[in-house]
Amino acid sequence: MERSTGYRIDELARRFGLEARGDATRVIRGVAPLRRAQGDQLAFLAHPRYAVDLAHTQAGVVVLRAEHADASPVPALVTKDPYLAYARLAALFENVPPPAPGVHPTAIVAADAKVDPSASVGPCCVIEPGATVAAGATLGPHCVIGADCTVGAQSRLGARVTLVVRVALGKRVLIHAGAVLGADGFGLARDRDGWVKVPQLGGVRVGDDCEIGANTTIDRGALEDTVLEEDVRLDNQIQIAHNVRIGAHSALAGCAAVAGSATIGRDCLIGGGAGVLGHLDIADGVTITAMTLVTHSIRKAGVYSSGAPVEENRAWRRNAARMRQLDGMARRIAALEKQLQALIKERS
Amino acid sequence: MERSTGYRIDELARRFGLEARGDATRVIRGVAPLRRAQGDQLAFLAHPRYAVDLAHTQAGVVVLRAEHADASPVPALVTKDPYLAYARLAALFENVPPPAPGVHPTAIVAADAKVDPSASVGPCCVIEPGATVAAGATLGPHCVIGADCTVGAQSRLGARVTLVVRVALGKRVLIHAGAVLGADGFGLARDRDGWVKVPQLGGVRVGDDCEIGANTTIDRGALEDTVLEEDVRLDNQIQIAHNVRIGAHSALAGCAAVAGSATIGRDCLIGGGAGVLGHLDIADGVTITAMTLVTHSIRKAGVYSSGAPVEENRAWRRNAARMRQLDGMARRIAALEKQLQALIKERS
Amino acid sequence: MERSTGYRIDELARRFGLEARGDATRVIRGVAPLRRAQGDQLAFLAHPRYAVDLAHTQAGVVVLRAEHADASPVPALVTKDPYLAYARLAALFENVPPPAPGVHPTAIVAADAKVDPSASVGPCCVIEPGATVAAGATLGPHCVIGADCTVGAQSRLGARVTLVVRVALGKRVLIHAGAVLGADGFGLARDRDGWVKVPQLGGVRVGDDCEIGANTTIDRGALEDTVLEEDVRLDNQIQIAHNVRIGAHSALAGCAAVAGSATIGRDCLIGGGAGVLGHLDIADGVTITAMTLVTHSIRKAGVYSSGAPVEENRAWRRNAARMRQLDGMARRIAALEKQLQALIKERS
Repeated sequence: MERSTGYRIDELARRFGLEARGDATRVIRGVAPLRRAQGDQLAFLAHPRYAVDLAHTQAGVVVLRAEHADASPVPALVTKDPYLAYARLAALFENVPPPAPGVHPTAIVAADAKVDPSASVGPCCVIEPGATVAAGATLGPHCVIGADCTVGAQSRLGARVTLVVRVALGKRVLIHAGAVLGADGFGLARDRDGWVKVPQLGGVRVGDDCEIGANTTIDRGALEDTVLEEDVRLDNQIQIAHNVRIGAHSALAGCAAVAGSATIGRDCLIGGGAGVLGHLDIADGVTITAMTLVTHSIRKAGVYSSGAPVEENRAWRRNAARMRQLDGMARRIAALEKQLQALIKERS
Repeated sequence: MERSTGYRIDELARRFGLEARGDATRVIRGVAPLRRAQGDQLAFLAHPRYAVDLAHTQAGVVVLRAEHADASPVPALVTKDPYLAYARLAALFENVPPPAPGVHPTAIVAADAKVDPSASVGPCCVIEPGATVAAGATLGPHCVIGADCTVGAQSRLGARVTLVVRVALGKRVLIHAGAVLGADGFGLARDRDGWVKVPQLGGVRVGDDCEIGANTTIDRGALEDTVLEEDVRLDNQIQIAHNVRIGAHSALAGCAAVAGSATIGRDCLIGGGAGVLGHLDIADGVTITAMTLVTHSIRKAGVYSSGAPVEENRAWRRNAARMRQLDGMARRIAALEKQLQALIKERS
Repeated sequence: MERSTGYRIDELARRFGLEARGDATRVIRGVAPLRRAQGDQLAFLAHPRYAVDLAHTQAGVVVLRAEHADASPVPALVTKDPYLAYARLAALFENVPPPAPGVHPTAIVAADAKVDPSASVGPCCVIEPGATVAAGATLGPHCVIGADCTVGAQSRLGARVTLVVRVALGKRVLIHAGAVLGADGFGLARDRDGWVKVPQLGGVRVGDDCEIGANTTIDRGALEDTVLEEDVRLDNQIQIAHNVRIGAHSALAGCAAVAGSATIGRDCLIGGGAGVLGHLDIADGVTITAMTLVTHSIRKAGVYSSGAPVEENRAWRRNAARMRQLDGMARRIAALEKQLQALIKERS
């Protein structure tokens, strides 16, 4: 899709430590999907779903695993992890001009806020007292950087990202449009007459290299901070409640939600729409599949799931009705076993 | 609720192809719910839940099915689909003055962006280089139209709708406040040291007559575009991941989520909170009930469900504990059957 | 964390009706977590998960239940509900300076909008014709107060809160950043050629003392209003569809969703990610656990749940496969019972 200066296939192989097969002198100027790539474009094959497209590809070169190399009608770049290699290769061809440094004249910057001269602050941004925007940081239009918040060096915020109060972003943090960090945690105590709000006095700390999706929300802590360690990746519309801690390199897919004071280890993968209840711990290296509800701590790395499989509605209705009888069914099985054993014993 | 110029019942019947019963000379000036409507207001009866309100209605006229006509104490407009007829009738009484054409003086429009003189651009909107806003389009306050995005003719965007980059909207597209289209898809490859971001080089294409709910997010494609065909209807807080394709006239209820590279056919209905996993296909005419997780492709039109039924928590605890024993229960049933057959055989 | 003027422990006891134990002359200047509090800070012990931290605390005073008082190495404030007492105590130490009254020069206020001189309107806010902002109300940056909307006295809106149209907020309502109230309900009728939009002519009414979370959406009613009674508490990313009514003092946790025309009683607790289908009623005093789907009306107070428990994925796969065979299993149990009874009867 994107065109740019070209790179010879052998040059790409050298730069990224890949093995080139076929004519390695071709020049590649962009990337495209396997079934639409042209002679000066690079494609990749990672997911088996797309293996059928390889036979007919007209790509200039295909990044693939050794097992697929012989089936490629065009030159190949062979690697154990084509998706990872593609991620790096594609970045070569991405042309996003860095925004010009400086504060847009419509931005409103508090007198005692610190904005590095190399930072770029977009139209209508509001930077409140005590806030800091570090070197090379970029704020899209309509961002609000609340009191005492920090945007680390080289961080990039999309349009109307809001840091409410006491939010500290590390370096190279990427936040997409509409995310809200540092709003009040949902802390309520119940009195006879109604709810009493629990003051939310903590903040949010986001480690280096984290990515936070569009319209995602991360509440500030009640007393201590809500924490994302480095390189945590959150997709869109994720909800992180107060006092949650997420370990380095963990990734959460869209619409996942983590309740208050839960801790998630390092290198965890949380599937889309999954929920983690509050005040529990998930160990390092845990994978939770989509729409699973985690109701207790998980102490061991591994893959965990809950939920019922999708089926035709009529069959589902019959089966779901039985779910309410499950305990009774189990007791009936036990009774049958007992009676049958008695019968067998008696007979012998 | 809304009052306006009046229409006689017989005039409404003619205009919308309905059958008038009772005094068709009454003048109707607005619409209201069955149990609160007054003599110059139109009400409708579609959902059986509200049939009890018919006997006491004081509406000027009720839109209903033939089976209910005799029970109506007031004039009726008879049709097979009262809700559809009501939708058209009510539009007559909706008084939304079109915003004045022109660009608000606080909007920030790039020199090379194209804004049609008949379009209306609200306060503090930001229109970036290469963007186009076509004839009759309306942007609410604080919209951001990113680089190379297009807003089609007569499209209407609520407050602070964000089109990030390479988003093309068709004609008459309606987007509610806070929606974000074209943010980065969630593409990550895993290296030994952490995550490597996969460049998201595609865009988003939205067909004519689509509607997109408040705070909904639609990511741009990794290589190809994320696509909504014409007349797709998305409720609030829906998450559409990169490279998804949704067929014409499909409708998704609130908080539904579709993972990357899934395709959904035409005329599908996806219930609230439902999830569709990535890289799978859903045929035309499929209905998915609320909070179902679709884990595999669905090849045939029909209604599909997953999940367990709600019940009193104490009973649920007992039954849910048994769900973890289900495979064992099934094996015990099989063993019982075998033993019992042996016993019966032996006896005969 | 927060420091301020100090209060003697006996003074705190008197003011909040607590029983002081130990040296009640110490001066407290802030609040902190049990395991990090210092000698001039107050901590609390409510959740049993944190009882282990009590033995080593260096807090100036701990708010706790009588059963824990003897185990405290430091002075204590004894109460039946430490969390509630803490909520009130902590508010003493919260230092949020009220924003200065007045309209920021970059705000855009319609000529016929009414803004009380004691209200504070932030940068780039847009207040449309016919809107009212009452005494002492505070609007953060980029709020949009649509036509005919009302912000009640002392209400506080975070950054870029949007009230679309016909939204009436009571007094002391607190809305966090990014929430959208009053967008179109998702009303569609199906015609042969596609969807026909049903005009959404109602509004939204929010009672006194409600709190609404970040990026939450509340649609306006189709004909009547969507209603939150007083002291309703909504967490982040909640979706409330058109014509929903939620009773006083009910609280909904993050990502819960309520479909159109459902009514929820008073004093209900809806867990995170739970869903309530449309056109049904939930009685007063009902608790719904996290990620439960409510598919029918609930007439009696109590705790309700649905869903399957999380387990290791391999075991889950085996059990989930059996969920599709449940009805068959139940029939096989019944057949076994019949055969076994016949056998037993025959034998006797």
